[in-house]
Amino acid sequence: MNRESRALSGMRPTGPLHLGHYFGVLKNWLDLQENAQAYFFVADWHAMTSDFADTSGIRRNIVEMVKDWVAVGLEPDKCVIFRQSAVKETAELSLLLSMVTPVSWLERNPTYKEQQQQISSKDLGNVGFLCYPVLMAADILIYRPYGVPVGEDQLPHLELTREIARRFNSCYGQTFPEPQALLTLAAKCPGLDGRKMSKSYGNSIFLSDNFADIRGKVRGMFTDQTRLRKTDPGNPDVCNLFSYHVLLTDDQTRADIREGCATATLGCVDCKKIFLKNLKAFLLPIQERRAKLTERPGAVEEIFAAGNESARTFACVTMDDVRQKMGL
Amino acid sequence: MNRESRALSGMRPTGPLHLGHYFGVLKNWLDLQENAQAYFFVADWHAMTSDFADTSGIRRNIVEMVKDWVAVGLEPDKCVIFRQSAVKETAELSLLLSMVTPVSWLERNPTYKEQQQQISSKDLGNVGFLCYPVLMAADILIYRPYGVPVGEDQLPHLELTREIARRFNSCYGQTFPEPQALLTLAAKCPGLDGRKMSKSYGNSIFLSDNFADIRGKVRGMFTDQTRLRKTDPGNPDVCNLFSYHVLLTDDQTRADIREGCATATLGCVDCKKIFLKNLKAFLLPIQERRAKLTERPGAVEEIFAAGNESARTFACVTMDDVRQKMGL
Ligand code: SF4
Ligand code: SF4
Repeated sequence: MNRESRALSGMRPTGPLHLGHYFGVLKNWLDLQENAQAYFFVADWHAMTSDFADTSGIRRNIVEMVKDWVAVGLEPDKCVIFRQSAVKETAELSLLLSMVTPVSWLERNPTYKEQQQQISSKDLGNVGFLCYPVLMAADILIYRPYGVPVGEDQLPHLELTREIARRFNSCYGQTFPEPQALLTLAAKCPGLDGRKMSKSYGNSIFLSDNFADIRGKVRGMFTDQTRLRKTDPGNPDVCNLFSYHVLLTDDQTRADIREGCATATLGCVDCKKIFLKNLKAFLLPIQERRAKLTERPGAVEEIFAAGNESARTFACVTMDDVRQKMGL
Repeated sequence: MNRESRALSGMRPTGPLHLGHYFGVLKNWLDLQENAQAYFFVADWHAMTSDFADTSGIRRNIVEMVKDWVAVGLEPDKCVIFRQSAVKETAELSLLLSMVTPVSWLERNPTYKEQQQQISSKDLGNVGFLCYPVLMAADILIYRPYGVPVGEDQLPHLELTREIARRFNSCYGQTFPEPQALLTLAAKCPGLDGRKMSKSYGNSIFLSDNFADIRGKVRGMFTDQTRLRKTDPGNPDVCNLFSYHVLLTDDQTRADIREGCATATLGCVDCKKIFLKNLKAFLLPIQERRAKLTERPGAVEEIFAAGNESARTFACVTMDDVRQKMGL
C-alpha cells in the first residue's frame, strides 16, 4: 500500500465512542490517514438495517460520532469523511449488484444466521438485514479501494464482497478490483467489568466522558479478582486493569507495575492512580480538540459538505463505467 | 380518478411491441393520458432482474419501445415518459423500504415461486429477482399515485406494495397513500396460432411490421380449425381470427361476417382480406407517426430529457419527506 492506494472503512452511528472503538478501530484509521487515500464513512443506512424501528437518535449520534473522529485526530484535509446516505449512487450500485448475487450466498452468511438466533429483541427478518452484505459490497466497490481494514471476524463479509466483484467482472468485464483485506490485530481493550466494552453493558469509558465520571469508573474497575488483600501478590496477566496499562502506560512504568504487583509492594488503589493519570493525559488532547470543534457551530456539517462532495464525485465515475458495462 | 390524480405504469424494454401489447396495455395508457396525470416508465432495471446475463440489447430496445409508445399516440406533452434508471432516488427508496419488509413476504410471493420453477433457462436465484417486489413498491410509491393499472394476475404484487406502504406508514408516520388498483380487463388478443401472442413464440404481429410481412402473417393465421372446406359453415366463436374482428372491425361488418361464416357464404380467405384491410387502416397512422419520429434524430432522447427531469423533481420531494420521517 502507498499514499496513492485508496482504503475505505465505515462505522455505524450507534452513540458516543469509547476506548474500545479507539484501540480497536480509530487507532488504525489514524495510520490509514497517513499512509493511504483514506475514505471514512458514517454508515447511517447500515444503522437502519438492524434498527429500523427506532431511528430517533441517528441524527444526533452522527454528529457526535464525527466529533469523536476529529477529536482523536482524523483531519478532513488528509482524509475523506462522508455520510453513506449522501452518496445515492451507492444505493444504485447495491441494486445492480443484487442482480448478480445469488440468494444462497446471503443465506449462508454466518453473521446473518448467528444474529438472527441471538438477537431476539430486534426484528431481523427484514429484507434489509438479509441484503446487508450486498449494500456493504456496494459501499466498498464503488470506491474501488486497494484495501479495507478488517478484523478477523469480518473476513467472511469481505470475502463475499470479493466474490460479488468477481461475479460482476465475469458477467460484464473487468470493473472492480478485488479489495484486499488489511488485517488489523484487535488490541485487547475489555470493559470495566472484564467483558467486551460495549455501550449496552454499561461498562465503557467514553472518549467524551468528563474526568469526574472517569475517576468513579476507574475506582470501580475490576482488577485481579483473586487478589483479596493488598498484601497478597497479584497477577497482572489475569488483571483486567493491566490490559489498559498495556495500551496506555510506557514500557518502564509498566515493568515496574508488573514487579510491584507480583511482589505485593504495589496495591491496586495506587495502580489505578497511575492508570487514571495516564488515561487523563491520553484523553486531554482528544477532549480539547472536541471542545474546539464544538465551539464552531456547523463544523460537522462543513466537514460533510466537503467529504460528501468528494466521495460522490468519485462514486459517479465508477457508476458511469458500471452503467456503460451493463448496457444501461 | 380525475385529471389531478396521478397514475403510474411501466413496461420492460423486451423488444418491439405487438398487437397484444396494444390491446392489453397501451390502449389503457391512452385513456390514462387523457384522464389522469400519467407517468409511464421504461423499466430498464426490472429488465435486469431476470435477464442480467444478456443486457446487450437493452439500449436499442428502449429506444424502439418508446418510439412505439409515441407511435400509438402517447404524447410527451400530456404525460411523463421516463426511464426508471434515470431516477436514482428510486434505488434509495428501494433500499429504505427493504428495511421494513419481511423476507417472508417476498418468499410467499406466488410469481417468485412459479417463475423459479418454470423458467430454468435463466438464472432466477439472484437477490435482485427475490427483491423485485420491493423495487416495484419503490417505483410506485415514490410518485405517490392515486392508482396503478393492473391486470388481475398482478393484483398480488400491488397488494404487496400496499402492505409495504402500510408498514412504512406505521413505523414512521403517514407518508405513502396506498395506491388503488385500476383493474384493466384484458382484451382477448391471441397470437397467429391461437396461443398467447408473444415474441418468443414467433406468433406476433408487431406494430412496426411492414405491410408485406403482415400480409404473409395474416395468410397463415389460424381460423376455425374445424372448418375444412369453404362450403362448411364456420363458428366465429371458436375462430382465432374472429377475435381480431372484435378488436378492429366495426359492428355492422362484424355482424355480417358472423352471419356469412355461419351460413358458409363467406370463406376464410375473404374474411382475412377484410381483416387485413382493417389492420392496415389501424396500423397506418401508427406507422406514420413512427416514421415521423424516426426522421428526427435524438427525438427519443429529448423525450427522456424532459420526462426524466420531471419524474426526478417529483421523486426528490417524496424522498425529502421520507428521509425526514426516518430521521436521516
Ligand atoms: S496492582 Fe495493578 S496490575 Fe496488579 S492486580 Fe492491582 S490493578 Fe491489577
Ligand atoms: S370466415 Fe372468418 S370468422 Fe369464419 S372461420 Fe373463417 S376466418 Fe373465422
